[in-house]
Amino acid sequence: MHKTKQISSVQNTLVKKILLLKEKSRERKKSGLFIIEGLREIQLALKGGYEIETVLFQKDVIDENETFSLFENTQFTPDYIEITKDVYQKLAYRQTTEGVLAIAKGKPTLLNDLKLPNKNPLILVAEAPEKPGNIGALLRTADAANLDAVIIANPRTDLYNPNIIRSSVGCVFTNKIAMGSTSEVIDFLKAQNINIYCAALSASENYIKTDFNPGSAIVVGTEADGLSQEWLNSSKQNIIIPMQGEIDSMNVSVSAAILIFEAKRQRNFE
Amino acid sequence: MHKTKQISSVQNTLVKKILLLKEKSRERKKSGLFIIEGLREIQLALKGGYEIETVLFQKDVIDENETFSLFENTQFTPDYIEITKDVYQKLAYRQTTEGVLAIAKGKPTLLNDLKLPNKNPLILVAEAPEKPGNIGALLRTADAANLDAVIIANPRTDLYNPNIIRSSVGCVFTNKIAMGSTSEVIDFLKAQNINIYCAALSASENYIKTDFNPGSAIVVGTEADGLSQEWLNSSKQNIIIPMQGEIDSMNVSVSAAILIFEAKRQRNFE
Repeated sequence: MHKTKQISSVQNTLVKKILLLKEKSRERKKSGLFIIEGLREIQLALKGGYEIETVLFQKDVIDENETFSLFENTQFTPDYIEITKDVYQKLAYRQTTEGVLAIAKGKPTLLNDLKLPNKNPLILVAEAPEKPGNIGALLRTADAANLDAVIIANPRTDLYNPNIIRSSVGCVFTNKIAMGSTSEVIDFLKAQNINIYCAALSASENYIKTDFNPGSAIVVGTEADGLSQEWLNSSKQNIIIPMQGEIDSMNVSVSAAILIFEAKRQRNFE
Repeated sequence: MHKTKQISSVQNTLVKKILLLKEKSRERKKSGLFIIEGLREIQLALKGGYEIETVLFQKDVIDENETFSLFENTQFTPDYIEITKDVYQKLAYRQTTEGVLAIAKGKPTLLNDLKLPNKNPLILVAEAPEKPGNIGALLRTADAANLDAVIIANPRTDLYNPNIIRSSVGCVFTNKIAMGSTSEVIDFLKAQNINIYCAALSASENYIKTDFNPGSAIVVGTEADGLSQEWLNSSKQNIIIPMQGEIDSMNVSVSAAILIFEAKRQRNFE
């Protein structure tokens, strides 16, 4: 039997705490907690080994037992809290979600915790990506390509920004993700003998000529600024997607996907 | 010498008309006019052969002569209208634009107006794309790949939605774009002997096994619904990007880019 509490006031302390966790990266860092919205996202977080402390559900949208059953085969017994429609609408970003939110514990994103395969890992590195939507799209692509890791160098945001969770459709929980300064990431890749291929405009070869079969890190910068000199100095080979248009600028998540799937093609999707 | 009018009231009739043109697809269709925001976007529209009727500029952001010089080597003598900061902020979507807006004439998007190369055109078809941001990203990729045409089948929005213009970073003006019902587009492609390759989950071959050297149309549907049966019935071969993740869903503009650039690779980017 589960004990379920109730919250019906938008002035409740926990409601205020959740709003802060959604809005403030600082709050997430301080507490080590973050908010997950949506049934599928919660399921993916559980599958990804995330610990969930509290579940809030709106009873007339999601059945109480459906909420309980989320945790049936897990080691967690979260606090269950029934919330009113008012409270849910105050907390939820999407009007169309499934009436359920969770408070979860973040996981460390240390480079040295990454478990890479012994043979020829394929990794995506994004330096200082700005837009949560771009990070989300990169994570979706990385999931689909089953990359061995995604590394964010010089991150400008924490991983649990609600816009990243949403735009990644939960792939923030399915990927192996690490973060570090650009120097730390370069040192890490070099120590693992992983080739660094920087997507860059200068001194670049056509990406289809690059051999992605050895251990490879595909490194992308921002649309506005590209990659830092530090990355370019450490590049085994700069690579470029030949463009033949009037504008010649693709979205960073689009460019990364083209590079990643060329590597997958060369590796026969194995 | 250019004659410049002034508008300083947000209640001005033209200001109201511009707002309607931005917000209402119906107004754009009725009048044949639409709004372009930003210097680069206006330049690209001129380059793309769009006729511009009126230019509005905020004098303390953009120099009057810079506005005039936009049209120096064109056949157009638009009306120049100086607007105040208040009026500009009422009209502009972006706070960071260059203080200039234009009223332009839309162009027809008839299939039969498409000028395709005689040899082996490469075309992107998107059926019923929903999100302007996705359409914009598709158009950026199509520009970079220098596709022979982009065709939108069963369009749900007109081309001159401000969000499409913005998210395409003006590539809505640099691509050859046509629209038609799905039946019309299929008939058109068949009449031109262009192979139809539908991105689909069922009865699909790995896209890297497909020969994109003959005239090819890569056809993508929406993330939610995929392609209609009508397209699948007309497919020469369904194609699929093998996915190996937990989620297995990429953004439609990402999938399309992977397919387009595989075709470009096979064609040696020629």
